[in-house]
Amino acid sequence: MELRERESRRDDATAARQPNVCDISAFRGTHVLITGGLGFIGSNLARTLVAAGGHVRVFDSLLSTGGGSLFNLFGIDDLVEVTVSNLHDIDAVVNAVEGVQYVFNLAGQSSHWDSMTDPQSDLEANCSSQLSLLECIRHTSPLARIVFASTRQIYGVPCYLPVDENHPLRPVDMNGIHKHAGERYHELYARVYGLHCTILRLTNTIGPRMRIKDARQTFAGLWIRRSLESRPFEVWGGDQIRDFTFVDDVVDALLRAATSSIARGRIYNLGSEPHSLRSFAQFIQDATGCEYHVKAFPEDRKVIDIGDYYADYRRIREDLGWLPRVSAREAVGRTIAYYRECLEKYV
Amino acid sequence: MELRERESRRDDATAARQPNVCDISAFRGTHVLITGGLGFIGSNLARTLVAAGGHVRVFDSLLSTGGGSLFNLFGIDDLVEVTVSNLHDIDAVVNAVEGVQYVFNLAGQSSHWDSMTDPQSDLEANCSSQLSLLECIRHTSPLARIVFASTRQIYGVPCYLPVDENHPLRPVDMNGIHKHAGERYHELYARVYGLHCTILRLTNTIGPRMRIKDARQTFAGLWIRRSLESRPFEVWGGDQIRDFTFVDDVVDALLRAATSSIARGRIYNLGSEPHSLRSFAQFIQDATGCEYHVKAFPEDRKVIDIGDYYADYRRIREDLGWLPRVSAREAVGRTIAYYRECLEKYV
Repeated sequence: MELRERESRRDDATAARQPNVCDISAFRGTHVLITGGLGFIGSNLARTLVAAGGHVRVFDSLLSTGGGSLFNLFGIDDLVEVTVSNLHDIDAVVNAVEGVQYVFNLAGQSSHWDSMTDPQSDLEANCSSQLSLLECIRHTSPLARIVFASTRQIYGVPCYLPVDENHPLRPVDMNGIHKHAGERYHELYARVYGLHCTILRLTNTIGPRMRIKDARQTFAGLWIRRSLESRPFEVWGGDQIRDFTFVDDVVDALLRAATSSIARGRIYNLGSEPHSLRSFAQFIQDATGCEYHVKAFPEDRKVIDIGDYYADYRRIREDLGWLPRVSAREAVGRTIAYYRECLEKYV
Repeated sequence: MELRERESRRDDATAARQPNVCDISAFRGTHVLITGGLGFIGSNLARTLVAAGGHVRVFDSLLSTGGGSLFNLFGIDDLVEVTVSNLHDIDAVVNAVEGVQYVFNLAGQSSHWDSMTDPQSDLEANCSSQLSLLECIRHTSPLARIVFASTRQIYGVPCYLPVDENHPLRPVDMNGIHKHAGERYHELYARVYGLHCTILRLTNTIGPRMRIKDARQTFAGLWIRRSLESRPFEVWGGDQIRDFTFVDDVVDALLRAATSSIARGRIYNLGSEPHSLRSFAQFIQDATGCEYHVKAFPEDRKVIDIGDYYADYRRIREDLGWLPRVSAREAVGRTIAYYRECLEKYV
C-alpha cells in the first residue's frame, strides 16, 4: 500500500468522506479518547477525527484475541497518542481521560464463542474494565461526552423483525449478558453521577481494518480472508438474515451521537438492509471469484445463535439524521479492495 | 444461650418447624452444598437440612463485609463440613460440589450501598464467583439441582404493585445489575449445558443470624441491634412500603424449589404482606420499647432507592404451594428473642 504524504493526509481523509455525513468540524481542536482505538472501528474513527483536526488519544490492550493492531493506525501513527495498556491501569486511564471532551468507548471483547469458552475473560473485558473506565471518567472528566458501542447481541433471539430498541433483552450468550451489563453501567453512571452517555447498538460491521485472521470479530472477516487466499469459505446455514453496516457509516453514527445534544441518555440501533448469509457470501464470491460451501450449522454453535436479525434504525434516523449510506455489496467491495493491498498485515 | 444436647438436635429442629412446610424427608441421606452457608439464610438452611438427615457442606468466603459467621453454625458445627474459601479456589469448589445432589447457591454480596462505593467487589462476588461456581458444577456435578438466591433489587423502581415475575427488570444500582447477570448465568447454563436451576427472587428477609452489625445486609438488622442496645434507631423516610419474609419461610421456599420437578427452569418471587417502614419500625419498638426517629431520606441514597415494593408471589404459591407463614410482627419478635440471647456474638 502506498502512503499518502503526511501534509495532505488530513485533507485527503476529509475528501474521502461522503456527502451528508456528520459535520466533523465540531472536533477541530478537541481532545478525544478512543478506547479500543487500535481495533477495527476505533482505528477508522481515529482516522476521521485526525482528519477533522482533533487531538486523538487511543487506548488499547492489544489482546491477541481482539481486533487491535498497530498497523491499523499506519500513516497517522505520529498524529495519534497511543497507550497500550488495560483499563485497570488507573494511572494510564486517568492520563488518557484527563481533559478530553469526548470518549468513544469501543473497548471490549466481541467473540460470542470465546465468551462461552472463556466467560471470565469476557467478564473482565466487558464488565470489570468498563467499571474501571467509568470510575476514572466520573472522577477525572465528568463532563466528557461518552458514546458506548454496544451490540445487537443483547436482544437475543428476535421475537419480531425488524428489532427496535424496545425489543426485550434476552441475550443468549455470555457476551450478550456482559455487554448488557456494560450498557447498564453507562445508564447508571449517567443517572447517579450525571455523566453524558449515549449508547449505540451495533450490528455486523464490516470494512477495512477488521480482524480477518479468524471469525472472532465477525464471520465475514474469515470469509474475506479465505477468499482472498483463494480458499473456498464455509457458510453455516446460509438462510439466516442479517444486516451489515459499513464501518464508515458506523463512524458517522458515533460522531453524530457525540455531537448531538438530543442523543444524551439515548440508545440507538444501527442497521442496514437485510440479506441472507448466502446472499452476502455471494457478494464476496462475485468480488473475488472464490467459491463458498454451505454447511449445516454446528449443533454446539446453534444454541447461542440468534437466528434471523435485522434492526429497526428509525430512532437514530429521526433523532440524528443517520442513515446507512453504503450497501452491503459495496461494503464488501471496498473491504476486499483494502485487503488486496495489505493482506499480509492481517493474517 | 443454652445449647440443646447433640442427640436431640435433629428431632428438635424438625419439631420446631411449622406444619404445612416442605416435606424435608427428601433430604435424608443426600449430599447438599450451601454456598454462603455461614451467612444468614444459609446457616438457617443448614440447620434444617441437618435436622432432615442431610449431609451438609457449607462453602463461605467469610468476607468481613458479608453475613458469614462461624457462630451461625453453633451447635451443629460438628455435623456440617465447612470450607472457608472463595469460589475461585477451583480445587476447593470441585471438592465441595463433587457428589452433591443439591446446591443452594446463596453466596453473594447484598449491600446496595457497598455495590456503589465498591462496584468491582460486587462484580467479583455476584458475577465472577458465580461463573466460577457454575463452571465447576457443569463439569463435576451436572445433575445437581441448583437453587439460586436472587433479589427483588433487579426489578428497580416498580412500575406497578404488587410486582410479579414479568415486571420489567431495570435495576437502579450495581447490585441489581450484577445479581441480574447472575440469574442470566443460571439460565444460560441451564439452556446450554442442561443444568437444573431454579431462581428465587428474595425480598427483605429477617430472622435469627442475620447481620445486625450494620445495615449492609438489611436496614432491619441495624434497627434491631440499636434497639437491643437501647439506642434509638433512624428510619429514613418511613412511608416506603416493603414486604418482609421470615427466614424460616425463605428456607421453606428454597427446599420446595429444590425438590419440585415443576420448579426446574422457573423463576419465583417470594413475598409477604406489605408494611410501611414506619409500621415495621413500630413492631420493633413494641417488642423492645426502644424508640425510633424518622428522618429525611438522604439524597445520595435516594438515587438508588426503589421506593415502594411488594411482591406478587402467586406463582410460587400455585406451583409449589409456598406461602409466607410468619407475619412481619411475629418475625420481629422471634428475631429479637434470638438476639437477646446472643447479641454479643453479632456486634
